Order: sequence, then structure tokens, then C-alpha cells
Amino acid sequence: MSGSSFGSIFRITTWGESHGPGIGVVIDGCPAGISVSEADIQRFLDRRKPGQSKYTTKRSESDSVEILSGIFEGKTTGTPISLIVRNQDQRPRDYGNIASLFRPGHADYPFTEKYGFRDYRGGGRSSGRETIGRVAGGAVASLLLKELGIRVQAYTKAIGPYSVPEEDYHMSEITENVLYMPDNATASKAGEYISSLMAECDSCGGIIECVAEGLPAGLGEPVFDKLDALLAHAVMSVGAVKGVEIGDGFAASASTGSKNNDPFFSEDGTVLKKTNHAGGTLGGMSDGSRLILRAAIKPTSSIARTQHTVDVNHENAEIKVLGRHDPVIVPRAVVVVESMTALTLADLLLRNMSARLENVKKVYC
Amino acid sequence: MSGSSFGSIFRITTWGESHGPGIGVVIDGCPAGISVSEADIQRFLDRRKPGQSKYTTKRSESDSVEILSGIFEGKTTGTPISLIVRNQDQRPRDYGNIASLFRPGHADYPFTEKYGFRDYRGGGRSSGRETIGRVAGGAVASLLLKELGIRVQAYTKAIGPYSVPEEDYHMSEITENVLYMPDNATASKAGEYISSLMAECDSCGGIIECVAEGLPAGLGEPVFDKLDALLAHAVMSVGAVKGVEIGDGFAASASTGSKNNDPFFSEDGTVLKKTNHAGGTLGGMSDGSRLILRAAIKPTSSIARTQHTVDVNHENAEIKVLGRHDPVIVPRAVVVVESMTALTLADLLLRNMSARLENVKKVYC
Amino acid sequence: MSGSSFGSIFRITTWGESHGPGIGVVIDGCPAGISVSEADIQRFLDRRKPGQSKYTTKRSESDSVEILSGIFEGKTTGTPISLIVRNQDQRPRDYGNIASLFRPGHADYPFTEKYGFRDYRGGGRSSGRETIGRVAGGAVASLLLKELGIRVQAYTKAIGPYSVPEEDYHMSEITENVLYMPDNATASKAGEYISSLMAECDSCGGIIECVAEGLPAGLGEPVFDKLDALLAHAVMSVGAVKGVEIGDGFAASASTGSKNNDPFFSEDGTVLKKTNHAGGTLGGMSDGSRLILRAAIKPTSSIARTQHTVDVNHENAEIKVLGRHDPVIVPRAVVVVESMTALTLADLLLRNMSARLENVKKVYC
Amino acid sequence: MSGSSFGSIFRITTWGESHGPGIGVVIDGCPAGISVSEADIQRFLDRRKPGQSKYTTKRSESDSVEILSGIFEGKTTGTPISLIVRNQDQRPRDYGNIASLFRPGHADYPFTEKYGFRDYRGGGRSSGRETIGRVAGGAVASLLLKELGIRVQAYTKAIGPYSVPEEDYHMSEITENVLYMPDNATASKAGEYISSLMAECDSCGGIIECVAEGLPAGLGEPVFDKLDALLAHAVMSVGAVKGVEIGDGFAASASTGSKNNDPFFSEDGTVLKKTNHAGGTLGGMSDGSRLILRAAIKPTSSIARTQHTVDVNHENAEIKVLGRHDPVIVPRAVVVVESMTALTLADLLLRNMSARLENVKKVYC
Repeated sequence: MSGSSFGSIFRITTWGESHGPGIGVVIDGCPAGISVSEADIQRFLDRRKPGQSKYTTKRSESDSVEILSGIFEGKTTGTPISLIVRNQDQRPRDYGNIASLFRPGHADYPFTEKYGFRDYRGGGRSSGRETIGRVAGGAVASLLLKELGIRVQAYTKAIGPYSVPEEDYHMSEITENVLYMPDNATASKAGEYISSLMAECDSCGGIIECVAEGLPAGLGEPVFDKLDALLAHAVMSVGAVKGVEIGDGFAASASTGSKNNDPFFSEDGTVLKKTNHAGGTLGGMSDGSRLILRAAIKPTSSIARTQHTVDVNHENAEIKVLGRHDPVIVPRAVVVVESMTALTLADLLLRNMSARLENVKKVYC
Repeated sequence: MSGSSFGSIFRITTWGESHGPGIGVVIDGCPAGISVSEADIQRFLDRRKPGQSKYTTKRSESDSVEILSGIFEGKTTGTPISLIVRNQDQRPRDYGNIASLFRPGHADYPFTEKYGFRDYRGGGRSSGRETIGRVAGGAVASLLLKELGIRVQAYTKAIGPYSVPEEDYHMSEITENVLYMPDNATASKAGEYISSLMAECDSCGGIIECVAEGLPAGLGEPVFDKLDALLAHAVMSVGAVKGVEIGDGFAASASTGSKNNDPFFSEDGTVLKKTNHAGGTLGGMSDGSRLILRAAIKPTSSIARTQHTVDVNHENAEIKVLGRHDPVIVPRAVVVVESMTALTLADLLLRNMSARLENVKKVYC
Repeated sequence: MSGSSFGSIFRITTWGESHGPGIGVVIDGCPAGISVSEADIQRFLDRRKPGQSKYTTKRSESDSVEILSGIFEGKTTGTPISLIVRNQDQRPRDYGNIASLFRPGHADYPFTEKYGFRDYRGGGRSSGRETIGRVAGGAVASLLLKELGIRVQAYTKAIGPYSVPEEDYHMSEITENVLYMPDNATASKAGEYISSLMAECDSCGGIIECVAEGLPAGLGEPVFDKLDALLAHAVMSVGAVKGVEIGDGFAASASTGSKNNDPFFSEDGTVLKKTNHAGGTLGGMSDGSRLILRAAIKPTSSIARTQHTVDVNHENAEIKVLGRHDPVIVPRAVVVVESMTALTLADLLLRNMSARLENVKKVYC
Repeated sequence: MSGSSFGSIFRITTWGESHGPGIGVVIDGCPAGISVSEADIQRFLDRRKPGQSKYTTKRSESDSVEILSGIFEGKTTGTPISLIVRNQDQRPRDYGNIASLFRPGHADYPFTEKYGFRDYRGGGRSSGRETIGRVAGGAVASLLLKELGIRVQAYTKAIGPYSVPEEDYHMSEITENVLYMPDNATASKAGEYISSLMAECDSCGGIIECVAEGLPAGLGEPVFDKLDALLAHAVMSVGAVKGVEIGDGFAASASTGSKNNDPFFSEDGTVLKKTNHAGGTLGGMSDGSRLILRAAIKPTSSIARTQHTVDVNHENAEIKVLGRHDPVIVPRAVVVVESMTALTLADLLLRNMSARLENVKKVYC
């Protein structure tokens, strides 16, 4: 109820602060019998850990995961899977000056208004390190999806104004550049753009796109828990995300029905669509085609420029946010968006199992 | 769990199909002592009911609400409020041809895949009439918000390509044109655009904007149930919504930190912001400034043109969706978006009450 | 959150007051494809409706159910099933004197303390009529259970001090006496006992036993949502229930491990137990043997004797609760306990579907 | 959904197996501003840890708690509190023989049926060590209750047939005997009884009683989440509990309305009751008087006698459960029942805050 859990059946609960002993997640409701190792989870965590390139914070964290429960002889047992990552590089001195000031663009002010005070060390619970729990959970969700033939992949569509149009996508290039863009050429220009902003103590944002393939039709619950609605919840809950769209998204609002409707056709008895403006959902349920979503990421709020602000006594003040900050959070957030998508799909797959009496009988009769 | 409920403490559960006996909602968790009358709720329902202008369906429904429980002597009692709207104009013959065909852009195909069959009468549970329950619930949520000095208002920002820029907003004009736009001049052009599409048996979409004023800082739960995340869930769960953004939204992804950060300042001890790119949320919590969100609405899927599709036996076919359909759903969806926003805020206000021991003591000590 | 819902996947939400327009339930999460008719539900409601014998209230209610949604062509569609029973015999004059007095044994006083005031007409939301929603929901749950070969049956084990020992059970006699006891002889004595209490304006309670057969092993979730824990929650939530036990229950607390443990044995590869002190659950999960639970029902609180009490101004006063009250609620509560058991089992069956990857694959692969 | 969480607002999620790296709990929804130290939690854990007397297992565990998050400078911050207890004495050899056998009275058989296999080391997730998370959570809940003037206390009412009648209660003696009975004399006899059973490789159970004082009237939600219903859920979810009753409980079923109703009276404007057969609840809400509940604990299932059973291949077999087992679990379960009661009350106190508009305004206006 305090919002540290996500999912109904496949459900994660995260905990931990930036500068406390560690960060963790408890995954409840994972089916028994899935092979999971620490290495499987570490692979996901390594995609978000700091220090991967010159565009990420210099904070030094190995982000090594330890499995505390729920796995026996290499397989999930059906009981809660508890995972922990110990914090290592906690340099509290970097954050001394923000104890009494509210950083613009950060949670400091509303956090203090909500709880009466806050753990001011490195953003506390509102730090980007909070996403470690999401990614560790997403790694396990992805293993479940893989067992069912479903693949989720996120990548950087745009950094600031540098966007890759769909016709230039080269999916194999995603892992070839540190920005995780599907086009090395755009990534190169975007890198120069980031460097120029770094020189000015400024920052930028971008757009992450995520696709899922292999989904059966019918995932998502018709009214409030539509597939799109839960994805929007999941992705918008990631710090720095300011917008979410499915398929053509905002562009669809300026289209017409005759262009935006995706005509169905049948091929060997399989129902397919000639286009996919909908991005894989109809009436809030998966339609069997490729799921496509996009998340708008705002520019990193922590910048080393002098900004106007107020202090905890509500006096006017100035602040320069020092410390080790990413000039752009997008590349490290790619795996976070992918994880939130995987978690949403895993949960909806389990929720959907009881949609028909026929399926209930498959399990029990 | 099947997704017919929304909210944690202030929680609605909706039910009903387009062509069944009626549509309804049960509101659980509404505090006792709020004055609520059928007229209060009817005022909201009248804003979404059909037949308000030449741009809306000709289906004739009075959409009269009956209060079945939870109100005693004009006040909420704290027990569940059950509301029902009986369907009147059920012309099943209009929908006969769609029983065996999957309409492009509609839930028909995934619904059938999910449940094995579907109530094909007028979209069944996936009909736009489903939103009646949301609006009735939103009316009650709005009365609670009003008691706390909070006002929510939605309006049409754009119809197809006709968008009102913020500098041209005339909020008093919203109720002066049938499209609920804050600029009569743009509304007039948009109206002509819709008329031209109607002549071609085509349809369009648009953008709805919603603002909330009077919110205390600190609403929203820090990690998964951020204010923005729950708003995204709420609004994206409305049929036809394909994107949601908060504040500058997607535009923020192309901005820089130095421009996008909203500097704080203090005035008579009150913390204010010089700009509001964030749209009223920081770290997933309200920051005390104006909340702003936008929803992208796709063009109406029901068009009277011949479209390619498949039938329930997965054979290729053609379909012309006859019946009484809105050429644009945006004007009637305005109150739906406003209702979903009000429901989200009401719930978060109640959830936030126990954030501090100090507040718990205010109630019990 | 205000407690008007029960269940996680198969979930009911009830509403309604004793003297309002009606009482109802919304069932969400019921699998599609189950045959349900109004007659099926009516059969359950008739078992709890007033006026069945001289031991029940004379309030005249037909308690006729109307299906408002979720059923199409005789089958559940997977969407919420909304059921309503209109109140008919609302004689507010009977309850006039209790508007300002707190009836001993009733919810009047804490209700007023909680909400600030109450709907004093016939107990309002705390009336026994509230159980109509439970029974209507239980009827649908029972139809699902029946499809899976599971049968639930409740009956009266004891009325006041008149208890039927297990060795005297004649299950066929349950429907032969108005008290639903499995022994006509004991029922006859219990009937005389009730008559004598009625003559003295007094009332009594009793014990309801409920058994379920045909359950697969493994239902129930290991820690907090154990089968026994959810059954205890379900049954204790029925007004007037003051105790719940499973298997030998309280008697087990005075036994020893060597006597109380049920030895396993194998017959044709099937695991069976030589005894069933456990009542069908081990470690909070069904063990494949017969589930047995008992509920202790307190004596009816409404008695026509003069009792000491206080009024809404906290002044000392006297009260005689007139009106039409059951001298014993047990016989009418039998179907309520059976319904709550059925609802709990239906929900746990659906929850258990995703316990193993193997079962997830049965549905999707 | 897999049942590892308890509570709605004040919500705990537990994890961990008997012989894995450790056991833990995440507490979400705890108000900010409560003083909590590791010592406060340790005090609760020490009451359930093994090795306290000759009647408890010889397993050697210090059960030292570490706070991983949610506390800053000695106070709760409003964010999730993560607590861990590392397992130390994991002697897997003791449990080797049970890997292939189903122990009578244990979860082994249904666990295997549910998940396909099980972590057989010491009961895995179904071990009594699972309650560590409950007790650590209960310690924090109790600190919240204390801030509001509410005190919860559990003790042993009966061991096997040795029960302390209410008239012999000496509450100060509870901490004077290792069985936590409110009468040293009975405790002494009960001790001899346990010793005699130990000599015969047998075990016994008992009854735990729990009282709470200082509760405001009105806690509990009227229909499904009644105070008694949630307490029954909470307490019955503890392994080995086979029955729960409130107030006179099962005895009330044999009483009459005139005796069982508790008359109200007013003293200086305060509403009091002359008797408390109800045990502090009316209509599922606290009535301001002392809350009383009892839990029936079955005899320890692990006994070193030869018992009939079956193996994982469903072949008949014999088993002698060796290892370090408590001959009676009751004394160590006292603090578990107290913790579950505290957790339930803490949650209902927070849930009740929004029952009235008046209270909502106390927080916001």
C-alpha cells in the first residue's frame, strides 16, 4: 500500500536506500521449476550498473547480487525469492550540502512534505539505485517469459533531439554502442551532443523503446488492468519517465480511423494484421502482434550549475549539485524499462491463466 | 484481479455490458459524511452521455443514475455506494453483422482469444458505455476533493491536427463549444474538420488535457505507486487512449537539465516553483504546483467504410461497421479523463494520511 | 480496502443495507464458460431467506435475484457478474426506537464511533441481510467447484447445548428437518429448546460444520494465505461467528503428537491418511482428504427483553428490541458458511494454477 | 498473491527457508517518525528463539537481526523497512532421511503436490523459523501501537490438559515461568507433563490467549475485514494453529442471548460494558473494551517415534523424525500470536483513519 510492491500474482517488493547497507527485492508468486542462477540475474544488473562508459556516473559499485531464498538446487521452489545487493561506494561527503537544500527536479521537497523529514544521503529511497530491485526482479520475470517463448527487448530510440527513425533500425547495433541505440551513426552524434552538454555542466534526456515478441493474444484484463494501462503504470513508475505511449501513441491522435485501424487478415488460419499502428494491443489486450511502447525520459536533474532553490526552512538559497551524476540516464534506464515490461507481462500471463474454465480444467482435470 | 476494480482505499468496481440490463459501479472506501445526491452524479454523467451534439452517436440513452446503497439522509455512510444506470436503447439488430466478424481496431479478436467467446452485442464489456461506471465514481471522488479544496478540470487540447497552444487558452470558452476546447476559434475549425471526415465515413482522435489545483505536496507513493504512475495507469485504462504524459512529457526528452529543472523559490514561507515543466510532480509525488497531464486519444475505430478483416473461423472477410458511432470520441471522453484523475487523487489522498506518525496521532490522540 | 471485497482472483464485492433499495454483489474473476442461471443462484438464496420455519423471522422477502451482467446466452463471459436482490418488506416503523439507542450485542455503538453516525434502519449494512451477497456469490463459486468435481456441504452440528456426535450423523436427514441437523432426533429436541427460549423472549446459538470433498492436494498458500487461514477469515467474517476450528480444532490442543498425527499410507499409488485429525489441511495446504471446519455462532442479539444500554448521547437507558427477529440464526447461516467456504476454495483453486511452471505451460504451450 | 504478504496498509512480506542463508521481512507502509532500534526488534526475537529452556529445540541460533533499510537516525522514514536474520546452525545431515519421506503432520506431502518438489532441508519454507519474519514485523507494529497507547500481550493459557482458569490469573507470573503461563503452579504441573511426554518421544499442544488494551472503538471494517475476521486470518496463518476464538468463542454457541449480550452503561459520558462475553468486538469492530482471543495449538508433529508414512514414490514406509524438535511449540509461539495480533491492529488503525471526512480534514485542513 505504500507502493513498494508491483504485480498481482507475480509480485515484487523492493526496499533500500542509496547509502544504506543495501538494496533488495522479494519476488513472490514466481512459479516453481524455473532455472535461475545468480549469473542470470547479474547479467541484467550489469546492464544498469554505473561506470560502463564515460557517460555514466563514476560511482564504483559492483552491484553483485546474492540469492537469499526461493531457489533450491538451481530452480525456483515457488516460495519468495529474496535478492540483495550490498552498497559499497557510499561517499556521504558528496551529499553533505543537500541535507538542508531541496534540489530542483528531485524528490527532496515533496518527500520532506510527505514524511516530515528525509534520508538525505544520495536521494535515499528516491535514488536511481532503487531500480536495482526492479532489474533483479525483471531478470527472473524474463526467464519465465523465455520458457514461454516470449522475448522482450528495450533500446534507446532518442538522446535529446537525436532520434533514430524506424527505417534506420539496425537491431544488431544496439549492443555495439554505449548508448544502446539501434544505429551506430546516430549514437555517435548523440555521444558528441552529450559530451558538449557535460562540458557545460548540463544534461539531457531521451526516448526508450521496448518491444515484446511471442505474446499470445488475450493478455491484459479488459477494464482497469488493460495491458497498456499496466505497462503505463510500470514504466511511468520509473523515476525520470514523463510520458508513455503504445504503438503510434501521440501520433495516433492526429491520424484518422481509416489510416489508424490495422486490417486483419488470415494466413493458414492464423490471424495477422497488415499494419501495427496499435502497437500490439486492442481493447487493452495483446492482439498477437509485436508489442511496442515508448518512454520519455527527462534530462538528469542533478547538474553542477548554480540553481535557485529553497532550504528546509523555506529560505531562498542557491545550489550546485556536485557528486557523481550521469549526464544522461537513458542508457542505464534501458534495462529498467525492459525489466518493468517483463514484470508486467509475467504477471498478466499468470493472471490470464484462469480466464476460461477450459484452462482451469487443463490444470486440474 | 480481473481488472474491474481501481484504487486501493477509495476503490471502485465497475460492471456491465453495452446491451445488457445496465451498467454500474460500487464505490468502497469513501469516507462517511460527504453530501452526495443523484443530481451531483447525474451532472457528471450528462457530460458523457450520447446525443449532446451532431458529433456524437445518435444512440438515445438518458443515462439516469439510481443510488442503491451507501447514502443515508443525503450523506455517505462509509459503506459501499452502489450506483446503477439502466440501458434503454438496445438495438441489437445494428450489431448482428459483427457477431461473426472481428472489427479492426476493436477488442473483438483478443476478447475471443482470451475467453473463448464474447458477448458481441455492441462491444459488450469493451463498449464505451463501460465508462459510465468510471464517471459515476469520479463524480463522488470529485465531491471528496472539493471538500479538501481540490479542483480537477479536463478539456480538449486537440482534435486531429487542430491543437490549442497554451498561450491561446481561454478557460471560460471550454463550456461554450461542443468540443470542450479552451478556444472557440480552434473548436470551430476542428468542427469543420470532423464534418468533413463524417462525410467520408472516417473518424479522428485528439488530445485531452487535465489539470488539478489545490493539491498538497507529498501525494503519491515513492516507488511503484508514484502519482504519475497511477495517473498513467488510470488514464491509459480508458479505451482509445494510446499515450499519457505529465508536464512537458515527451517534449522534456529533447530538453536539457538546465532548462527542464523548475527552480524553487520561497514567498512568505511558501515553497513555489518559477516554472512547471514537471507538471506538478517530483519523484512521483505532488509538489504543490498545478498538476498537468495529457492523454492521446486514437481515432474512433468504428467507421462505415469497407475494411479488410477476418471472421471467427479465421477466414478472410470484409466489414463495414454500421450503427450509431461517434466520429470522434474526444469530447465525450473529457469527463472520463477528469473522472479517472479525480479517482486517482482521492485514493492517494486517503493513502497518504498514514505517511507520518504525527498524522496518525492527529486522528487518534 | 473498506472490507467489502473478498478473494484475490475469484473476488466478490458486496453492497447494500437492510432497508435501502436492495442488496447485491459483483463477482469479478469468474472464469468464462460456466453455465449459470438465475435459478441456480435462487436455489442458494432460498436456503437463507426468511420465513422458512417457525424459528425464523417473519419478515417477508422473496429475495429474488436478477442477473445484471456477466452472463451471455447462459454462460459466464469472464466479465464481472452483477447480481441484485431488491428489498421488499421494509417496515421502518419497527426500528424507530433504535435510532437513538445502542442495542447490546449489535454493531450500533462501534459503527457510530467509526463513522460519526449510522443508517439505523434495521442494522443498515450490519444487518444479516448483508449475507445475501455472500450467498449469491457462493452459488456461483459452487458451480465452478462442481465443474472440478468438488462438493461443499454445511449443516448444523449443534443448537445451544444440543449437539450431534459424529457417530450419529445421518447425512440424508439434514434436509429433513428445519434446523438442517444430520440427526432428526437431536433436531427435534433442539426445536423444543428453541421454542422454550422464544417463550421467554430469549435466543440461542449453535455450531455449524462444513465439509468439502474432492479437493486436490496443494490448495492454499504456504505462509499467510494458508487454506485454514483464509477459511478462518471467510467464516469469522460472518456476523455472529465467534470461533472457527479446523479438524479436531480446540480438542487437538489437549491431544498428543502420537495421537494427533495422521499416518499416511499408499493404496494403488494414491496417498491416503488413516485418520483425519487435521481436517484435511497440512502446512496450510489441502492434503487431499476431507476438509472439515466448524463455526461457533453466538445467540441472536436481538431479544425482546428489557436490557440495559446507553443512547447516542451516552446517557443510560433501557431497550427492548422489538421487530421480527430469528430466535436462532444458525439454520439460516448454514448456507452462508457453505458459501464462504466455496468462495475461499474457488479463489484458492485459481490462485494455485500458477504454482508450477509445468501448469503454466499446460495453458500456454 | 502467493501469500507471503500480510496487511493492507501496514503490510509485511516475509521470505526465507529454515536452512537457506537467512530469514527476513520487508515492512511497507509503516508511518514515518517512529523510533525503532535493532534492540527493540531483538527483544521480540529473543522471546521466540530456540534454546530458552529444556522444553525447546537445541538448535543453536542467535537470531540476530540486522536493519537493512527504512530507518534513518533511529527513526522510521516511511520507506520499506527490511530486516534480515542470518541462519547459523544449519545441520543438513539431521534432515537427510526426510528428503524422500513425507512426515506425518507436516507440509511435506501437499508442498510436493503443489510445487512438484520441495526444499526438504528442515521444512524449508514451512519451518517454524518462518515466524521470525512475523515476530520482527510484530515488534515494529507494537512500537506503533505503543505510540497510540495500545498494549498487546499474549501468554499460555493451557498446555495439553493443564489450563489456567481466568480466576487464577496472576499476570505478573507470566514471565516467571518458562511456559509463559499466568500461574506458576499450573506451569509447574504442565512442565512435568511435558517431561513425561519427552520421555516417551511424544509431544503436546496447548492454548495461547492474547489480550489488547487501549483500543479505540470502531477498528475493523464492517463486512469481510471485520476485526475478528482479520485476527482469525492472522492467527490461523501461524503453523500448528487449528482454531481461533474471540471472547467466549465456542462457549458462546451454547449460551443464550440474555446471558451472552453485554449490557452497555455510561460512566462520566464514557460508554462501557458490564460484561465482555464478546471479547471486545461488536459487528466486527472494536467496542472499546478489552480484546480477547485464543488460539488452539496442535501437538508438535515431529516426534522420534516410528510412524507409518509413504515416500515420494508413494510407497508405504516408516519414519522416525530425528533432529532437534520442541516437545511443545506453545511457549515459543506466544510471541508469534502476539505479533500477528499487533500487526492486525496496526493495519486496521491505519485503515480506519479515512473512515470519516472529519478525520480526513484533520490531516489536510
